[in-house]
Amino acid sequence: MSLSNPSVFLYGPGSAKIEDRPEPKVTDPTDAIVRIKFVGVCGSDVHFWNHGGVNGNFVSESQPLVMGHEASGTIHAVGSAVSHLKPGDNVAIEPGQPCRSCTRCKEGLYNLCPDMRFAACPPDTPGCLTKYFKIPADFCYKLPPGVSLQEGVLAEPLAVAAHAVRMIGVQPGQSVVIFGSGTIGLVCGAVARMFGAKKIVAVDLLDRKLEFARSFNQASTFKPDSNAAPEENAARLIHENGLGLGADAVIEATGAESSIATAIYVLRPGGSCVQTGLGKPVVNFPILTMSEKELHMHGAFRYNSADFKVAMDVLEAGTVPLKSLISNIFNFEQATDAWETTKQGRGIKNMIRGYGYKDPARMVHL
Amino acid sequence: MSLSNPSVFLYGPGSAKIEDRPEPKVTDPTDAIVRIKFVGVCGSDVHFWNHGGVNGNFVSESQPLVMGHEASGTIHAVGSAVSHLKPGDNVAIEPGQPCRSCTRCKEGLYNLCPDMRFAACPPDTPGCLTKYFKIPADFCYKLPPGVSLQEGVLAEPLAVAAHAVRMIGVQPGQSVVIFGSGTIGLVCGAVARMFGAKKIVAVDLLDRKLEFARSFNQASTFKPDSNAAPEENAARLIHENGLGLGADAVIEATGAESSIATAIYVLRPGGSCVQTGLGKPVVNFPILTMSEKELHMHGAFRYNSADFKVAMDVLEAGTVPLKSLISNIFNFEQATDAWETTKQGRGIKNMIRGYGYKDPARMVHL
Amino acid sequence: MSLSNPSVFLYGPGSAKIEDRPEPKVTDPTDAIVRIKFVGVCGSDVHFWNHGGVNGNFVSESQPLVMGHEASGTIHAVGSAVSHLKPGDNVAIEPGQPCRSCTRCKEGLYNLCPDMRFAACPPDTPGCLTKYFKIPADFCYKLPPGVSLQEGVLAEPLAVAAHAVRMIGVQPGQSVVIFGSGTIGLVCGAVARMFGAKKIVAVDLLDRKLEFARSFNQASTFKPDSNAAPEENAARLIHENGLGLGADAVIEATGAESSIATAIYVLRPGGSCVQTGLGKPVVNFPILTMSEKELHMHGAFRYNSADFKVAMDVLEAGTVPLKSLISNIFNFEQATDAWETTKQGRGIKNMIRGYGYKDPARMVHL
Amino acid sequence: MSLSNPSVFLYGPGSAKIEDRPEPKVTDPTDAIVRIKFVGVCGSDVHFWNHGGVNGNFVSESQPLVMGHEASGTIHAVGSAVSHLKPGDNVAIEPGQPCRSCTRCKEGLYNLCPDMRFAACPPDTPGCLTKYFKIPADFCYKLPPGVSLQEGVLAEPLAVAAHAVRMIGVQPGQSVVIFGSGTIGLVCGAVARMFGAKKIVAVDLLDRKLEFARSFNQASTFKPDSNAAPEENAARLIHENGLGLGADAVIEATGAESSIATAIYVLRPGGSCVQTGLGKPVVNFPILTMSEKELHMHGAFRYNSADFKVAMDVLEAGTVPLKSLISNIFNFEQATDAWETTKQGRGIKNMIRGYGYKDPARMVHL
Repeated sequence: MSLSNPSVFLYGPGSAKIEDRPEPKVTDPTDAIVRIKFVGVCGSDVHFWNHGGVNGNFVSESQPLVMGHEASGTIHAVGSAVSHLKPGDNVAIEPGQPCRSCTRCKEGLYNLCPDMRFAACPPDTPGCLTKYFKIPADFCYKLPPGVSLQEGVLAEPLAVAAHAVRMIGVQPGQSVVIFGSGTIGLVCGAVARMFGAKKIVAVDLLDRKLEFARSFNQASTFKPDSNAAPEENAARLIHENGLGLGADAVIEATGAESSIATAIYVLRPGGSCVQTGLGKPVVNFPILTMSEKELHMHGAFRYNSADFKVAMDVLEAGTVPLKSLISNIFNFEQATDAWETTKQGRGIKNMIRGYGYKDPARMVHL
Repeated sequence: MSLSNPSVFLYGPGSAKIEDRPEPKVTDPTDAIVRIKFVGVCGSDVHFWNHGGVNGNFVSESQPLVMGHEASGTIHAVGSAVSHLKPGDNVAIEPGQPCRSCTRCKEGLYNLCPDMRFAACPPDTPGCLTKYFKIPADFCYKLPPGVSLQEGVLAEPLAVAAHAVRMIGVQPGQSVVIFGSGTIGLVCGAVARMFGAKKIVAVDLLDRKLEFARSFNQASTFKPDSNAAPEENAARLIHENGLGLGADAVIEATGAESSIATAIYVLRPGGSCVQTGLGKPVVNFPILTMSEKELHMHGAFRYNSADFKVAMDVLEAGTVPLKSLISNIFNFEQATDAWETTKQGRGIKNMIRGYGYKDPARMVHL
Repeated sequence: MSLSNPSVFLYGPGSAKIEDRPEPKVTDPTDAIVRIKFVGVCGSDVHFWNHGGVNGNFVSESQPLVMGHEASGTIHAVGSAVSHLKPGDNVAIEPGQPCRSCTRCKEGLYNLCPDMRFAACPPDTPGCLTKYFKIPADFCYKLPPGVSLQEGVLAEPLAVAAHAVRMIGVQPGQSVVIFGSGTIGLVCGAVARMFGAKKIVAVDLLDRKLEFARSFNQASTFKPDSNAAPEENAARLIHENGLGLGADAVIEATGAESSIATAIYVLRPGGSCVQTGLGKPVVNFPILTMSEKELHMHGAFRYNSADFKVAMDVLEAGTVPLKSLISNIFNFEQATDAWETTKQGRGIKNMIRGYGYKDPARMVHL
Repeated sequence: MSLSNPSVFLYGPGSAKIEDRPEPKVTDPTDAIVRIKFVGVCGSDVHFWNHGGVNGNFVSESQPLVMGHEASGTIHAVGSAVSHLKPGDNVAIEPGQPCRSCTRCKEGLYNLCPDMRFAACPPDTPGCLTKYFKIPADFCYKLPPGVSLQEGVLAEPLAVAAHAVRMIGVQPGQSVVIFGSGTIGLVCGAVARMFGAKKIVAVDLLDRKLEFARSFNQASTFKPDSNAAPEENAARLIHENGLGLGADAVIEATGAESSIATAIYVLRPGGSCVQTGLGKPVVNFPILTMSEKELHMHGAFRYNSADFKVAMDVLEAGTVPLKSLISNIFNFEQATDAWETTKQGRGIKNMIRGYGYKDPARMVHL
């Protein structure tokens, strides 16, 4: 017997099941139905898998949650008012649906909409790990020619990066220090290059990650001394990279307390930092240095359509070896293996195939 | 025997002397010589008086420092190229001289000039507590008609406030929470009103300061519970003032760790905070909240000419009872009493008369 | 027999009729139904009355158009998802409905939405001259306490002004020259004051309009010499008002060729002009002066919710005698008289009462 | 007999002489003396050669003018306070000296300084066509490794381009239409690419210029129909290049009336245009379209240090075949031939060798 819309539900920490649900149908003229092909695994997925939720919002036996928010797929159907997409188009998905009516939505900062419904957000907004996913068509981005569905999954982390880079207004000629060389740090480098960053310094504790960043982003690299104070690491970073009074901009993509402090010390007077990594809620923070150097420190929360457009441009430009980020691909039925593998720190970007999807060009497997 | 240019020198913690020096002369066509009439006392003066310096830069017996950086006076002489000022004009003084050539100077952020020479900055840049003060004429601001020389001293703290308010781009309709109701917090309120702030909430631990802020800035007031967590105080502030999702902007003018944290919790998503108060170098900082609300946190260091122009406009507009900030006025020879009085927290803005100056309209005295 | 929803339809130049239509009902949870109380008459209404449309879009016998886009009223009903409004609330109406999905909508510039449906826009988007008007509730702005329904009509022209003033970023301390002292020029002055404009110079050819502007906006005034060249008028304006190198900003609210040229000559290097008046499609324009002074020239098209919020703040502040703008009020059945009166240049802002509405506090009548 | 400081003086239209002057010496600690190696010929040089001046300022027999403002050279001497340059360094020269003290200088817009002293600006500011040129050292930009002195001359037009591109804030993903494929139009394309422009459309009437632009900037090209209306050319440009609602940005580098009008018609709602070409003082301008599309039209006057830094980065990046812009190189003694050749429209960028300079790597000659 064939299934209508099999979906991967999280029931609690370490507990997930595939269940069937009714296939979604176009009901609004602006709807799109996407046949999901690939879903990326991100740190938040692993967090939910470990803890069953976040910020006091948890899934439960009676209210399980469809997982997945980084997704690509193929248009299955669209409503009558949709003209920019047709069945068969390959798309990347922007996973959050804002209310479109509040002050933030109307001023172009819909990522801050208090009524945002974000895919796979506990307790109850369903995600993309499902065969057919219904979404307003304007949140589907047609993949440029030559961009694969696997690469399309990277649109979401690239949009995170675009949001960070645009927040600090990276300009040609600038030096940008990026703390953390995981997926987000790496794609921040790719976006920063598109915005003209002249020098990128990648910072990480792991040599293999620095080596990857060096070739991926043509980055200089810096490995902090874990026993040194943030001031000392910052001074050495500045000296080794000839940054003079300090870096023009920092993208902090680790959330680690010592990195955040080092970021402040590494900036030049008037420099900007965007905090894209999430870690401890409260950290020791060198606020006097922020004041005396007149630094600008920005949070960055999710993304909006301008960020997804930058993401599509990075994908289209093909100047960065994005495919090299894709590590392991799991079948739909092995979604929990994908989470476990990511939890163990194996691979850069791991992905899950859409239900029943057989990708013609097979990539690496576990 | 008459003195040439008597000046108040700091020789070390608790040690100051009046010494004579040669009277400065116009040597450059853009010079101005100002006969100093009033010098304000600020927290940094008290800090130097207590500690003999700051940030590793200290005065010494062999290298004493002329104190004072908030000053007003009367033009005594100007160079041949100066056309906007003439002897007899009353002026406020902008006390920092940037190099005018570096990247920051050329991009309009000369307050961040690494070669800034700032009046009364240890170890060796002389200040304004002197009879005649030499300065490039473009750093003198002619007082508007009807503004007294005493009020002119307030141009400097008003410029600090203008820099803070402009940093966060206060707009008509916005709600602004100001932590701290000392001189800087109060004049931040005055400037925020000029930029159209709709609602101002003044926060302080002292009832008398809140009462002053209420009438000075037509502010709502909030007294934090010292035993409550920052989240709790923020939630109560928001609730009591009907701020909905939070305040549009915060000016943090205390430097206190708990205020800084409360500032973060009190902001709405997308809100901005400027840190103008200086306190502990490193504080516990709720960075995850900053990230998740996509807040913008700005340092603010000194000021520039645009800020002084705002200051002059506030003085000219006369919509705020600025005179009520002026508390005690000391003679030149009692400068150390002025510092001691300020150290004891007496008065809002205490001032010192210029050497030999007899102000016609006597104000309050100690 | 009572009517369901009587509405004033334009059938062609000089031809209008009241017809009944079905009363609109809440169908979407975010809908609001407004009982219209006052509708303002604007230049575009007169244009449609004269010409039956604009830009190639004309009404016809077979496709008549409900007129009116400046309106206030009382909430009659709201959908289940509306929490900020309830029946009985007095509101101002923002008359354009954007698609909420396109690039411009999502970046916060929804006034540029290519699929905007704007009230009373020929050929076929119905306007507000109707008993009950249906609109998404987020486009209704609750009138502040003490603001009358008649003043509420001014929210729309105030929003036009807010859009203009925000476009050029008027700041405290700036000088702003406003060409034209009709409704829009006058309310631009009111908004510019709220943004801190220090000096306003109102320019008009009619003495009585200048006199009105002088008291309404505490403006300086300037009457151009119709026989003088734009350069000459600009030079005289600058000289008479002590503007030095020129004005910081200009709001051009006439659309007249000579005013536009004068605007360019009156600005200081680096100054900004917003073109809010509409006139001849093509004008002689001093572009070399624009280049050599590095001026910034902005179009301004309609408004968005941020502008309406500024409008509500101006209404609430009550610092400008807005009521003095309201000239003549006509009954619903005399709508064509209102258009004719406005066509003849009589009154500043003329208004039409909603169908069957008896305003308790009667104002001036024809 | 050797000469001290031979310089090319313009005495009037078509009249120039080499005369000797005293060699300039370091007198201020921030001075630099540059041994000039190459001076570019620009349209304004030809204008002065034809007319003896501009804007009412003309050279005369009694007040001849040293010509030349696009220059590169080698540091001959520096003052004691100069640390970023030493004798022997190759540099590009920024030819305008602002006062550093006025409002515009202090806000970072020193290109608008009313007291600017700009090299070779009639009537009396000396230019660079001289053996030794004295300049504040902060207006010398050290050439990056591998950048020749001939390419260094291109720093000036590249700075013009940087100023234009930065004025309209070109961003990754944007479409930019550039009117005019002369030197400025071409280098605007190079800078726009560095800022991430996705699609560049070069517009010119000459096929050979379009062909050059196509390979130089990987631009699409458009040749307007001289018999068609601006609206028609704009519509065809948009259609042929798939620009949808229009271009995001326009750089107008011709100053031609028809191009300016076409620029307005080619922009999308909300788009921006910078006017960098200079032509007729007054043009027919479609201002209603500017208003209804809410366009932003910017003048652009000269440049500042941020622009020169972008220029150096373009030179350093080497991603554009800048050398291909250099056409003919004349000896110092043949300066008038260089102007005549340029007047005849021969070559893209013609240059003049510094007095007595023998460049090791000879390039094309006339």
